This record gives sequence, structure tokens and C-alpha cells, in this order.
Amino acid sequence: MQRMVVLGAGVMGSALCVPAADNGLDVTLVGTHLDHSIIESLKSSHYHPALDARLPDSIRYLQIDELTAEHLMQVDLFVIGVSSPGMDWAIETIRAKKTALSTLALITKGLEPDNDAPALTYADALPVKLAAQQESTLEPITFEHLVGIGGPCIARELALRQPTAVVFGCVDNDALATMANALQTDYYRIKQSADVTGIEACAPLKNFFAIGVSATLGHYATEKNQVVSVSKNPTAAYFNQAVVEMAALAEWLGGRRDTAYDLAGMGDLHVTVGGGRNSRLGTCLGQGLTISEAMAGPLQGQTVEGIDTGRVLSAGFRKAIDNGELRKENFPLTTAILDCIEFDCQFGLCHQLF
Amino acid sequence: MQRMVVLGAGVMGSALCVPAADNGLDVTLVGTHLDHSIIESLKSSHYHPALDARLPDSIRYLQIDELTAEHLMQVDLFVIGVSSPGMDWAIETIRAKKTALSTLALITKGLEPDNDAPALTYADALPVKLAAQQESTLEPITFEHLVGIGGPCIARELALRQPTAVVFGCVDNDALATMANALQTDYYRIKQSADVTGIEACAPLKNFFAIGVSATLGHYATEKNQVVSVSKNPTAAYFNQAVVEMAALAEWLGGRRDTAYDLAGMGDLHVTVGGGRNSRLGTCLGQGLTISEAMAGPLQGQTVEGIDTGRVLSAGFRKAIDNGELRKENFPLTTAILDCIEFDCQFGLCHQLF
Repeated sequence: MQRMVVLGAGVMGSALCVPAADNGLDVTLVGTHLDHSIIESLKSSHYHPALDARLPDSIRYLQIDELTAEHLMQVDLFVIGVSSPGMDWAIETIRAKKTALSTLALITKGLEPDNDAPALTYADALPVKLAAQQESTLEPITFEHLVGIGGPCIARELALRQPTAVVFGCVDNDALATMANALQTDYYRIKQSADVTGIEACAPLKNFFAIGVSATLGHYATEKNQVVSVSKNPTAAYFNQAVVEMAALAEWLGGRRDTAYDLAGMGDLHVTVGGGRNSRLGTCLGQGLTISEAMAGPLQGQTVEGIDTGRVLSAGFRKAIDNGELRKENFPLTTAILDCIEFDCQFGLCHQLF
Repeated sequence: MQRMVVLGAGVMGSALCVPAADNGLDVTLVGTHLDHSIIESLKSSHYHPALDARLPDSIRYLQIDELTAEHLMQVDLFVIGVSSPGMDWAIETIRAKKTALSTLALITKGLEPDNDAPALTYADALPVKLAAQQESTLEPITFEHLVGIGGPCIARELALRQPTAVVFGCVDNDALATMANALQTDYYRIKQSADVTGIEACAPLKNFFAIGVSATLGHYATEKNQVVSVSKNPTAAYFNQAVVEMAALAEWLGGRRDTAYDLAGMGDLHVTVGGGRNSRLGTCLGQGLTISEAMAGPLQGQTVEGIDTGRVLSAGFRKAIDNGELRKENFPLTTAILDCIEFDCQFGLCHQLF
């Protein structure tokens, strides 16, 4: 594995370039039309303003309008690193270059609605999208292997080479090992898993559950010597419940339960609670705000991915409860978060959750 | 279930009296000879100095020399709440009262060395100890049911009635349900499990692993805008690895793997990292101290239960590695912590742990 191209110069796509470049790969980072100033900065000084970090000298930077079909020839690893609303744009962009990819890796996380299935992870939705002709007259995109990337990874810490453990998932063992070997460094440790669907299920679900766990951060306080701190028992209880429910939902979405009880689920939720927008929304809910109040107030103008995940999850989840496929009593936290998203009600921090 | 007696007026035994008293049980809290001033304070004002909380008015308090056989007659639930070094003393104390107990519940957590087995949880060691005549000419103690108590519970938060989710374990479903119903309140939620051995394995193991996870808190720092904070990726990675290894060790000790992936393991570790003596020791290790240096310095005069657990675990663990029962590559964190305990070396915060 020699050549890697990352589409999307957001924090995670950019941070992934660091171990790749450190391992001597030929790395090209392509910004979207939203990344213009980031790419300008990287071109002039290798400094990524959102990461607040300097990237390795060897990385090549391109604005999106500089990307040509030649840049995509003989690419061993193509990484989609756009935000989830940009996924369809990313696919059309690749399609327009008529490229044949070897390994396609996903940083973008999300769920897609589906008429027949509960909801589709990107691991299941993407191959269909890529192969489809859609309205476009362009060629379908072919690729040999799809790799999902999960696990607890704050992008800036990775860019600063702090020790980070992640999991890569692919149904093809050899392709997986090749990619893991190409990207693994002494600070970026990669577990290998065959359960790409489970990894792709846990990634958006952990955003969703981070909302509920973080509600405890905004709600329960213990005072000692006039110092007020967050109560830890409720947070641990909700964290535990979130992982248990995530495992059941990951299985329902076609993945494996034990994937949630590892880096992609438990580990990633650990790093997500207490930082980021999902967690800040949850804290607002714990303080008694509704989602619309939080989005009009402290989170104005922000995208909170856990809300999008909840919206996609909702219809299939309610249907599965109704038809007995899932049992409602096993999902008190899922239900409490979904109620906030669907009915804009206050978060049900009732003691009877468990 | 009407009458409950708790032996040991430390923080956890005392806090457990709160939901019991709130539920209208007849509760007696008996201090050990180490708890003299606590019982004095409780008798005069219901104030528990170590909990920094006032206990319910209905609780009866006894100094150990006030405990008579009559106090132990018709006790439905006897709770051992001494610290682990006091377990043998507690057993002799009960034995001397010639009591027949209905349900015996364990707050005390630890492992016992064993010649044949890897190590014994209290769930397995205690029935043998209680039945044994030993050198004493006293009667063996009989009891009908043994209940283990696990899960994330900081005692002071429970005493302040902060929402807390725990797990009770007992092989007898009916006895378990009776006890859970007697103690469950709106703030003290009780899951029921048949895996008492797994619960009793996880409780001491989480102290042991809290040392290793907390080492990351003392070691990795990320700076932003001149504010230095703990890096979150390494802590999440170690937390995840700790739970995975705890599940394997709990199974090896005779419990069930999935018990570790729930309140008794994952949940309790969540609340243990970042607070308490095991975590403070771990932070010292992360700062480069050895255990002997930490115990002679910042932790002088303290008992760190995770060290005791490691000492009991060690011989059986090394033997199981040698004979192939356990595979060393699956236990990098266990090995790193045991090395510190056995050889007083620096903690191996190597990136290759995972």
C-alpha cells in the first residue's frame, strides 16, 4: 500500500494523514468546497487551524477544483472523510472522476433510512450507492474492499501523536491486514475486525447515546466543602446502560454485539461523553432545556450528529417495538433520547430508567 | 424481609443502610473496633463523619462490644461491610454469636489465594470459611443464601440519594428478588443476576485495573491555548482494554464474561477511575513513580486494595500463562500492572500495549 487520498480536510480526515505520512505513504489531502481556507493554510504552512496542529511536510494538499482523474489513478486507499451530510456529494465527486478504487475507507459516520431494513449502516448503504447509476449517466464506482474505521479517537490528539487505539473492520482479512499494517504506528494502534457493519453501527450510535449519558453531567451534583461537582454514580449508570443498549441496537442493525463491547462502542463512547457537540447537547437536556431550546440557544448554528442518527433510527425502532422484534423495556435510554428528538420534550431523567 | 444488620460502619456499609431505612426496614449498624468514633457520632447526631452525611433517624447504632446474640436473632439480612483485611475477624465475630443467618450479603471485596484454583472470589471462599470449624471450637455458621453486591456506587453519593444502579447476585432467584425488592428505592436501582461469582470477581478486579487505567491520567497531556489537560484517547483505550481483560479474568475465576460487560465490571470501573486510592496510585505510576515510591510518598499510610488483589492474582495468573490456560498476549495491561506490583518497576506505558 503506497498511495492514499483523503477526501475532506476536516479534523478526522486530516488527522488520519499523520500516521500515514509518518509511515512513508504518499498522502494527498483534498479539501471540499467548505475546506478552502484550511487547504490554503496547509499549503502555505502545513498548519491545520481546526486541529491547531502542524501536519507532516510530506503531505500534498489540493483544493477540490484541483482534483483530477490523474490524482485518483493507482490509489491504493481512498478515504471518505467528509461530514455525513456530504456523503452523496462525495460519491458524485468520485464518480465524476471515473475512478477504480482498490480500498475504500470510511471516516464519515451515519445511518441511512431504509424501507425494508431497520436502518442501514454506511457499510451496507454505500456499496449500493456506489454501484447505482442513479440519475447520473456516469459509470458506477467499483472498489475491491470497504473498510470501516471506529474507536476512541479525538482527531487533535491523533494529530499530536497521542497514543490512540482504534479498530478497522473489513470482511476481507488480507485487505484489512494490508491497510492496518500501512497505517499502524507506535502511537496509532489498530485492532482488526471482520464486523464492518457493527463498527459502522456503533459509530453513529455512540453520538446518539452520548446525548443521553451527558444529560447526567448537567443534572446531578454533589456538594462537599462548598465545592459542587458532578455526581459520578448516575453517569456511570447511564454510561453502562448506553453500552448495553448500543450492543443490542448494533446487533439489530446487522452487526455483532461484542463489537459494541470493545473499542468501536464502549471505547468510543468513553471519549465522546464530556467533549463535542453531542455531549454539550446532552448537558443542556440535563439542565432542563428541550432540543429546540438548546439548538436556538447554546448550540445555535451547530450540527449535532446524534440528532440525525436518532431521526433515522426512530421509525424502524418504533416499528420493531410494535412488532415485538425489540422489547421496549430493554431500551429505556434509547426511548428517552428519541422522545426528546421526536417530541421536543424534556429529557426523562427518571430514576426508574433502570 | 424485615430486619437487616450491617457489620462495619465504613462508608459503604453505612450508605447501604439509607435505602434500607427509607424502605422501612429495621436496620442495625454495628461498628468494628476501628469505627468507635463513627458510631459515637452516629449515636449522638446521626452524622457519619467519613460520609459527611446524616443518616436516617430510624437506624440503630451499636459499638462492637454492644453486639449480643439477641441482636442477631431473626435477622433476615446480614451484611458484611468490613474492609477485606477484616474478613476473618468478621467471620469469627459472627461465629461467636452462634447465629443462624438467612441471607448473607457481601460488601467486602477481595480475592483469596487457593492452591488448586487460580484464586477464589469471596463467593467461593466464604462458604468454606463459614462452614469450617478451624481451630475454633465454635459452631460453623449456617446461612441459606449468599448475595454479592456490585456495580458503580460511590458510597457518599448513595448516602445523599443520588441515582445509583447496582447489581445483586445470588444463585437463588427467589431470595435474590426478595432482597432486591427490600432494598430497591427510586434512587437505588438493583439489577438481578445469578452470577454471584462473576460479580465477586469483578469487584476486586476493577480496583486492580483502575490502577492501570489511571496511569494514563498521570502521563499523557494535551495543551491548547496554554491550558494543559489530560489526553482522552489513551484513557479510553486503556479503559476499554481493562474491561476486555477483566471479562477474560472473571471467566477464568469461574464467573461469566458478560458480567464484566455490565454494571459489576464496566460500570464500576467507570466510577472507580478518577477517584479513590487505586486511581491515585495509578496516577503516581503514570508520573513515573514505582509503587514503593508512591506508598512511601503521596499514599503513605493508605491501603490500596488493588495491590492486594494483584498479589493474590499473581501466582495463579503466571501459572496459567505458563501452562497455556491463558495467553499472555491477551493480557498486556494485567501484565503491566502485575509487573509493577511484583517487581516494583515503573509502569510500562508503552504504545505497544494494544
